[in-house]
Amino acid sequence: MYKFKITIAYDGTHYSGWQLQNNSITIQFLLQEALQTVLRTPTLVTGSGRTDAGVHALGQVAHFTSEIDLNLYSFAHSVNSLLPHDISLLSIDPVPEEFHARYSAKAKIYHYYLHTDRVLNPFTRLYRTHLLYPIDRELFRKSLNLFIGTHDFTSFANEASLGAAAKNPIKTISRIDLFEERSGLRIEFEGNGFLYKMVRNMVGTALEVASGKINIDHLAKLFSAKDRRLAGQTASPEGLFLAEVIY
Amino acid sequence: MYKFKITIAYDGTHYSGWQLQNNSITIQFLLQEALQTVLRTPTLVTGSGRTDAGVHALGQVAHFTSEIDLNLYSFAHSVNSLLPHDISLLSIDPVPEEFHARYSAKAKIYHYYLHTDRVLNPFTRLYRTHLLYPIDRELFRKSLNLFIGTHDFTSFANEASLGAAAKNPIKTISRIDLFEERSGLRIEFEGNGFLYKMVRNMVGTALEVASGKINIDHLAKLFSAKDRRLAGQTASPEGLFLAEVIY
Repeated sequence: MYKFKITIAYDGTHYSGWQLQNNSITIQFLLQEALQTVLRTPTLVTGSGRTDAGVHALGQVAHFTSEIDLNLYSFAHSVNSLLPHDISLLSIDPVPEEFHARYSAKAKIYHYYLHTDRVLNPFTRLYRTHLLYPIDRELFRKSLNLFIGTHDFTSFANEASLGAAAKNPIKTISRIDLFEERSGLRIEFEGNGFLYKMVRNMVGTALEVASGKINIDHLAKLFSAKDRRLAGQTASPEGLFLAEVIY
Repeated sequence: MYKFKITIAYDGTHYSGWQLQNNSITIQFLLQEALQTVLRTPTLVTGSGRTDAGVHALGQVAHFTSEIDLNLYSFAHSVNSLLPHDISLLSIDPVPEEFHARYSAKAKIYHYYLHTDRVLNPFTRLYRTHLLYPIDRELFRKSLNLFIGTHDFTSFANEASLGAAAKNPIKTISRIDLFEERSGLRIEFEGNGFLYKMVRNMVGTALEVASGKINIDHLAKLFSAKDRRLAGQTASPEGLFLAEVIY
């Protein structure tokens, strides 16, 4: 038995997210179809975690097993020729049997992009969340900084359709950096795990503080409140990228 | 009578080019519809020149006239709210009566992007021409350099559907620069005028030299040959951007 780690980039615009679903086209489904066609045998692709509908990935990671060893170069080429152009297999590497795309992951990095110019950019419109109101950038930065550290993130986790109950809501975010870009902002989040819609809920809540809808003291109390209804709205998916999974 | 110059960016992927056509959605058509709605009167939008189906623009320029003076800020906002998200009115400025988007233009700058990585990038796939074969970059640079200067470009002009016969085929290209980018190449062309499909025919022909299909000596003779059939194929539209019109 051979085990392989694959790294995938995708434009999530036209898909119902990563995870297999009935009656929807998902990244996992298309990847599995392509792998099965090349391997000529039913194949399960296990991802590092889900990404939601409309969310993008620069470096999603998954694993699969094969009875036969593979010529990695020609295998990657064959898989890419079967995938639609908005999904790319970036690399494939052999991994030991113990490797698991989800359980072996030590940390994940997400990027969230905000377009703050009044005029939309036709070329980045699908990859930036367009902010239609002004924000206080210093207050935005302060709000984001409150998420750094080890907290119970229950107030920032949507109920997932499956398996959420079992998840430990205590996560550690080691880094949140805010960068000014030409037409907006880029926020980078690095942490040992993220709950369902957690990044978008943190961004949405920090935006509500920065636009004067919520007081920053209220935000600080949300960790102990453990109530999703007290936090801000979920920010749009199009600005979110799963940038890297660290093992 | 008031005259205005507008600068527009667009993602040309889903349009039949700039120019008004029967039974097709074009940029000029949508812009004209939006302006007419805001101005409440039939309005003609005159562009600096056409761009073809699938070609993009970072800074296309056009002009129109209005019986009434405009509040430029709110006018731009209203027009943008009526345009689809892949077309953006970037700026609007009052200009003297003599200004003409096409005839006053002194030069134009085009950018052409080639993606040379084996694996396609899901996020730039609509904005780069994917080169599926290897090229000799030095030979590519030498081929492109042959186009600099004042030449009869008949061999590099496709027959246009309208008005081409009247055009002077002698054009001056003042600058062609080739830049290495992370996953490919960017070529910048600056010249006082460009014939129909001329940039794409220059790129296509230089690519045929750089991939060994045409000898570079043959390319040098194409100016005097004045025969489009002797030059290379027209390169794909998705890599081409009208970057700037200089007045």
